[in-house]
Amino acid sequence: MIIIIDCEDQKGLIHKITGVLAGLNLNITENREFVEKQRNRFLMRTVVEGDIDAAVLRAALEAVLPADHSLLVSNGELKKMVIMVTKEEHCLTELISKYYFGNLKVNLVAVIGNHQHLKAYTEKFNIPYHFISHEDKSRETHEAELLDCLKQYNPDYIVLAKFMRILSEEFTSQYPSRMINIHHSFLPAFKGANPYRQAYERGVKIIGATAHFVNQDLDEGPIIHQEVIPVDHSLSPMEMAAAGKDVEKLVLAKALQLVLEQKVYVSANKTVIF
Amino acid sequence: MIIIIDCEDQKGLIHKITGVLAGLNLNITENREFVEKQRNRFLMRTVVEGDIDAAVLRAALEAVLPADHSLLVSNGELKKMVIMVTKEEHCLTELISKYYFGNLKVNLVAVIGNHQHLKAYTEKFNIPYHFISHEDKSRETHEAELLDCLKQYNPDYIVLAKFMRILSEEFTSQYPSRMINIHHSFLPAFKGANPYRQAYERGVKIIGATAHFVNQDLDEGPIIHQEVIPVDHSLSPMEMAAAGKDVEKLVLAKALQLVLEQKVYVSANKTVIF
Amino acid sequence: MIIIIDCEDQKGLIHKITGVLAGLNLNITENREFVEKQRNRFLMRTVVEGDIDAAVLRAALEAVLPADHSLLVSNGELKKMVIMVTKEEHCLTELISKYYFGNLKVNLVAVIGNHQHLKAYTEKFNIPYHFISHEDKSRETHEAELLDCLKQYNPDYIVLAKFMRILSEEFTSQYPSRMINIHHSFLPAFKGANPYRQAYERGVKIIGATAHFVNQDLDEGPIIHQEVIPVDHSLSPMEMAAAGKDVEKLVLAKALQLVLEQKVYVSANKTVIF
Amino acid sequence: MIIIIDCEDQKGLIHKITGVLAGLNLNITENREFVEKQRNRFLMRTVVEGDIDAAVLRAALEAVLPADHSLLVSNGELKKMVIMVTKEEHCLTELISKYYFGNLKVNLVAVIGNHQHLKAYTEKFNIPYHFISHEDKSRETHEAELLDCLKQYNPDYIVLAKFMRILSEEFTSQYPSRMINIHHSFLPAFKGANPYRQAYERGVKIIGATAHFVNQDLDEGPIIHQEVIPVDHSLSPMEMAAAGKDVEKLVLAKALQLVLEQKVYVSANKTVIF
Repeated sequence: MIIIIDCEDQKGLIHKITGVLAGLNLNITENREFVEKQRNRFLMRTVVEGDIDAAVLRAALEAVLPADHSLLVSNGELKKMVIMVTKEEHCLTELISKYYFGNLKVNLVAVIGNHQHLKAYTEKFNIPYHFISHEDKSRETHEAELLDCLKQYNPDYIVLAKFMRILSEEFTSQYPSRMINIHHSFLPAFKGANPYRQAYERGVKIIGATAHFVNQDLDEGPIIHQEVIPVDHSLSPMEMAAAGKDVEKLVLAKALQLVLEQKVYVSANKTVIF
Repeated sequence: MIIIIDCEDQKGLIHKITGVLAGLNLNITENREFVEKQRNRFLMRTVVEGDIDAAVLRAALEAVLPADHSLLVSNGELKKMVIMVTKEEHCLTELISKYYFGNLKVNLVAVIGNHQHLKAYTEKFNIPYHFISHEDKSRETHEAELLDCLKQYNPDYIVLAKFMRILSEEFTSQYPSRMINIHHSFLPAFKGANPYRQAYERGVKIIGATAHFVNQDLDEGPIIHQEVIPVDHSLSPMEMAAAGKDVEKLVLAKALQLVLEQKVYVSANKTVIF
Repeated sequence: MIIIIDCEDQKGLIHKITGVLAGLNLNITENREFVEKQRNRFLMRTVVEGDIDAAVLRAALEAVLPADHSLLVSNGELKKMVIMVTKEEHCLTELISKYYFGNLKVNLVAVIGNHQHLKAYTEKFNIPYHFISHEDKSRETHEAELLDCLKQYNPDYIVLAKFMRILSEEFTSQYPSRMINIHHSFLPAFKGANPYRQAYERGVKIIGATAHFVNQDLDEGPIIHQEVIPVDHSLSPMEMAAAGKDVEKLVLAKALQLVLEQKVYVSANKTVIF
Repeated sequence: MIIIIDCEDQKGLIHKITGVLAGLNLNITENREFVEKQRNRFLMRTVVEGDIDAAVLRAALEAVLPADHSLLVSNGELKKMVIMVTKEEHCLTELISKYYFGNLKVNLVAVIGNHQHLKAYTEKFNIPYHFISHEDKSRETHEAELLDCLKQYNPDYIVLAKFMRILSEEFTSQYPSRMINIHHSFLPAFKGANPYRQAYERGVKIIGATAHFVNQDLDEGPIIHQEVIPVDHSLSPMEMAAAGKDVEKLVLAKALQLVLEQKVYVSANKTVIF
């Protein structure tokens, strides 16, 4: 069972919490704490073994925690996830390949695309694919259709796996810290329409990718994971984009794994990774 | 104050230990635990703030720990270190540069070399340099002279910063888990006289370095830190060795930093790094 | 058109070769040379644009090259490839995902497995899967069956994508520098049955993978590509193996890309990568 | 002898150039070409062996090159370099350590600092240190004093090794593609006064450094080299800055090595690295 605590920091907290666990005869097999000093928050992730009902454990812990806390007691049930895509396949194939062979511990309930490119691939794996085009629609109408579709699945997490439409704050605010996006960001970080072209013009020697939660601003939420690869002058913008795809898919899959293992805390606009 | 505990694992240990700290009115600012399941050892590194005498804290903790424990309560006094070298300068200059500007929290009491190459450099920084040649001496005689010199400094740590003589088990067993060596090891790891020549012949695409404690066998103790860099066919063996030097010096300095911050545990033949 | 030359080094060679190209009114758009001094070999990879028949160009080049040369003039026709697997899926899904979406410029004609685990996945993509079990057969019989199957496809390249049977020299010598293997090799490189268990016991801080050509000795051919990732004490042997899978698949795919773009030379027991 | 050519691209250029070399009985031991298609420039770096006067070789090559060319024939004489610093020591100690032991092939003629912090260290190595304070001076006055000091050394290269004053375009335009700066840039790249504080607030997982030529805009010239290291939430802004120092010094030293080996071309606002 995994216990996730996020509360105001106080002296003696670990002693109180571990006292509850010892009293219930639970054995701690993994334990990480972190004190976020800027906000005076105490974060703890504990894995325990033992014969216990989640509700009982939860109640016992709530009795000792400060009033201002969030507490999650997870017994490992699978979370529901929807993936949203456009035309690019590399992130989707990475996630579906891992999922199909049991290496992504999640319930992948649907894929939504604003193009049809990835429908045939997705349906090979008996995963529903919803084609919801944005053409000839206002953003409001398109987002309303997307939300309607999402809501029928009631997902815990939504993964933007190269979904290339900008989503409004009305949309993203429905799933705070539950939407995960992959961004092709560089060193230096280029914004705007064609970052690989800009990276090429500037002659950067490294490109990278960033997986992050989506909050109000699409590209600015808390960073979960980042990786980079070296490039050089001999690559065209198209070759840079191709090289970037492998990084993007691994960074997204790695970030998702961390989220699904309940190892990612959001604290203000950043994450703490246990 | 830093508390380092290594003991048999038991249910309720964290609760007991944090109870002692809460009772003494100490505030935990950093805390890491790890259970080494193979050997059933509980490892803990805790940083506390508060007004307390180290001896009092030590006694209070010993009262709650299992009989079979090792306990360190450190108030941050500097450790004494001796560096041993041969001819190559890169690891020595890295350590002395950091030390001279206050970025290596240690008391560097002496350098011992079996050649004179690095004497002038070392003495610029007013650090004693002992030239103890191995020429025309048996290994026993040479090691006895080295030990005599070392013992006058009573060092906490000895750093083999490209010391190119093989040391006997009689020598190395005097300082268990207190001698740190830097090894130019590759992927695949080449042994023997000229690893860079072997790496070249085999056409490896990556070379690296390993910092480790020296136990009985010179090149086989617990690994503290490793890093690698990419290489290609265009490098000669000499250029590979040159490229390797930057990795070697950073890996050694990083490993030493971890050791000096009391973040490295030795558990059987491996390390746990907090 | 791509021109690949491997011949004895001589003064004036580049001048002669570029003279042929200029005489045929071809424009050089990419050019790399390397002189392998140990063997006194001149290696050259040139991409030219222009209106020319491959046979004419070939004949013109042969007229100026030293007697002892190998010459390839490629107009980009797709090579035929067979993949061999056992139970692990990660390398196969990486290659098929890239192939299916047109990002692996090859003709993937078949997959051969000594288990059935990957049959259903492979057949989703309309790629023939041949199940050739090794059970209750001598190695000779099993290899004869594998060879029979391979020969009907007449492949240019054979990829061992986690094919976990040791192949005899009689088998591997049929396809010199045309079989590519992925090896889970570490720093230090562990050999034998369970390298991840050994890496765990030794407490390594980095693991990696190596893609190489298979020559007589299965794990010892010329290295094409290598990458590594950091690990730490908190990973179990199983988690290390899982982390290693992402490296393995990327290293194999990258190596294959280099081979298919005709950028890999074999020179004695190593490669030159252009 | 090293030959560096940068000229308009034309058909048959390599043939003409290698014809000159063959006619002078020179042996090519290294050769790299690159065609920068955006600007239609042909770049070539060739190392030749043989008995030849640089002026003769130069004249022979000029006879076959297009009118619009730049040509450098270098026989390996050492370049003159001045380093400019403020208070931070890590880049200076890296460069001086390498220089002192003969691993930086340059003539380090002086260090200029706007503070006195690094004077004692520099003078240990018998390198002149000029303290030119900016206090109580206008930028114009300060820059005029710096230029006066620089000009007495007539340097080929000026290295800004954590020189923390912004230099005017009047100053930097005196040494186009000859001033090299190290910039602590991140992913995403933070600008402004305290990038490590910004990186901390944003919770980045990677930090890095960029070495580049200084053109008009101090932080925007052609990038020579970049590297990164992983970081996490547990580092304070000060610890991030400390971790960044090792990257900064290596990136600067590596970039300088490439420049001194004549392997760096500037083409528009980017570099081609051979």
